[in-house]
Amino acid sequence: MFELLDIIGTLVFAISGALTAIYKKLDLFGVYCIAFVTALGGGTVRDVLIGRTPVGWMLDIDYVYIITTGFLLSIIFNRYLERLRISMFLFDTIGLGVFTLIGLEKGLEFGLSPVICVILGTLTATFGGVIRDILCNEIPVLFRKEIYATLCIAGGILFFLLQELQIQSDIISLIVAVFIISFRLIAFKYNWSLPIGTVFVRKE
Amino acid sequence: MFELLDIIGTLVFAISGALTAIYKKLDLFGVYCIAFVTALGGGTVRDVLIGRTPVGWMLDIDYVYIITTGFLLSIIFNRYLERLRISMFLFDTIGLGVFTLIGLEKGLEFGLSPVICVILGTLTATFGGVIRDILCNEIPVLFRKEIYATLCIAGGILFFLLQELQIQSDIISLIVAVFIISFRLIAFKYNWSLPIGTVFVRKE
Amino acid sequence: MFELLDIIGTLVFAISGALTAIYKKLDLFGVYCIAFVTALGGGTVRDVLIGRTPVGWMLDIDYVYIITTGFLLSIIFNRYLERLRISMFLFDTIGLGVFTLIGLEKGLEFGLSPVICVILGTLTATFGGVIRDILCNEIPVLFRKEIYATLCIAGGILFFLLQELQIQSDIISLIVAVFIISFRLIAFKYNWSLPIGTVFVRKE
Repeated sequence: MFELLDIIGTLVFAISGALTAIYKKLDLFGVYCIAFVTALGGGTVRDVLIGRTPVGWMLDIDYVYIITTGFLLSIIFNRYLERLRISMFLFDTIGLGVFTLIGLEKGLEFGLSPVICVILGTLTATFGGVIRDILCNEIPVLFRKEIYATLCIAGGILFFLLQELQIQSDIISLIVAVFIISFRLIAFKYNWSLPIGTVFVRKE
Repeated sequence: MFELLDIIGTLVFAISGALTAIYKKLDLFGVYCIAFVTALGGGTVRDVLIGRTPVGWMLDIDYVYIITTGFLLSIIFNRYLERLRISMFLFDTIGLGVFTLIGLEKGLEFGLSPVICVILGTLTATFGGVIRDILCNEIPVLFRKEIYATLCIAGGILFFLLQELQIQSDIISLIVAVFIISFRLIAFKYNWSLPIGTVFVRKE
Repeated sequence: MFELLDIIGTLVFAISGALTAIYKKLDLFGVYCIAFVTALGGGTVRDVLIGRTPVGWMLDIDYVYIITTGFLLSIIFNRYLERLRISMFLFDTIGLGVFTLIGLEKGLEFGLSPVICVILGTLTATFGGVIRDILCNEIPVLFRKEIYATLCIAGGILFFLLQELQIQSDIISLIVAVFIISFRLIAFKYNWSLPIGTVFVRKE
């Protein structure tokens, strides 16, 4: 179940990267690269920072196949995928929840403190998109809009609160994933976003 | 003493990152991220390159608290901090000296040659700012203005010259830090900067 | 022989980086940094991802000297080097072939699967240029033009096909290098490039 969600998340992140690159008029190799880093960039940065090398996707070739699938789907069906915006958003949200959990668990495996694990979860879920935006020469959308990363952080905190209550680990994962996914959907519906950093600056 | 200076340097680098992000109108999460990478990016890149993983700040949670403090100060007092420009510049300069020394020492710990240690010192002191500028979609200011990095390199060379003279290690650190800090202030006062790379190109 | 080609490749990549930085009007330190990352960035990213740390150039100081030579040549002779465009292109192509082979072999050393080795070869040959473009605030040229990376991938596949045939490893390296280099020259002559990702999008 969890693995299936990981595959879906990876695939959708790859498609989201590929569509961005197509929109930016990159060539096929560029589209493939952006699909790759969007899907695997977060996990790669996490693995490099904690010293889990060779990084994950090098030891599990399936990820390369999943990305290649996402790449092919995107270049063939890109017009159609654009119209599937709502399904894509849903899958992207699932990816967000699952990737956060994977990051949290890798941090625990390496014996890191809860605060660092929360950072690793957030990083796993969000940094693929940050690298995508840097490569496409944009200020990362993550830093400008939507409540995306904040939900990963909240989910991570919830994870450790539930652990204090000695709840079984599978149940915790389920609750955290449902929490992140449902709040993302609610946030989208009501168009929540973080105040920009200048909130305390008076207008001249 | 040295540790206190490290804390001050980290705090000021975080504030400098946060103020840049506020100026760029990023949201609160973006401001936090930019504060984080500005303060810890240089050391993180250094640790990853030499294989000191999990990277430093993951094992010493205090850094996260220092950055959080810098973040909070920036979003609450950003107008006021702007007016403290001169004190900020002074602290930033202290950070520059201290971070260079920390980078040099980590290189020595890993048994790397003096040239590489000098590169590591410079990288520790300057790459946080480079990553900040990349994330904010600017050509790194480091590559364009001021004599910033050159002083780190000069400080690093001085470090190894003094070591040849068998001077005690604490004294060396002090001399190098004072050298970097005072030359930065002098360079600022007289508005020194490196010639741009086109210095040898004749105008058409 | 192979080592000589590695030196030539590194030198030419450094010069290509330096010339780009000069054109972008960076200062001398900026020019040096861009020369450095263009020449060593690909190998550095590869080493970090597979966990070969401290990364290669930290243990072999010669690379720093080669880059410094390329940097000095560029700032003194930049006008003249511009006119040597065709020789430069030739050397750059040699670098491409040699770096791909080095990346492939490092992957094999770490016992990684052929698909991953091909990715590592391509990454070694191309990511220096990607980092150069990111630092200069451009969308990486690699993602937009020319058949550059595709040749590295094709060369990598050829490498493993020839290995299946039990050909001697030196001969394989030679064939792959000649393959990449000659196709790059042909591709340049006939102005081949990959279709952009929007090839399947109908015009509105």
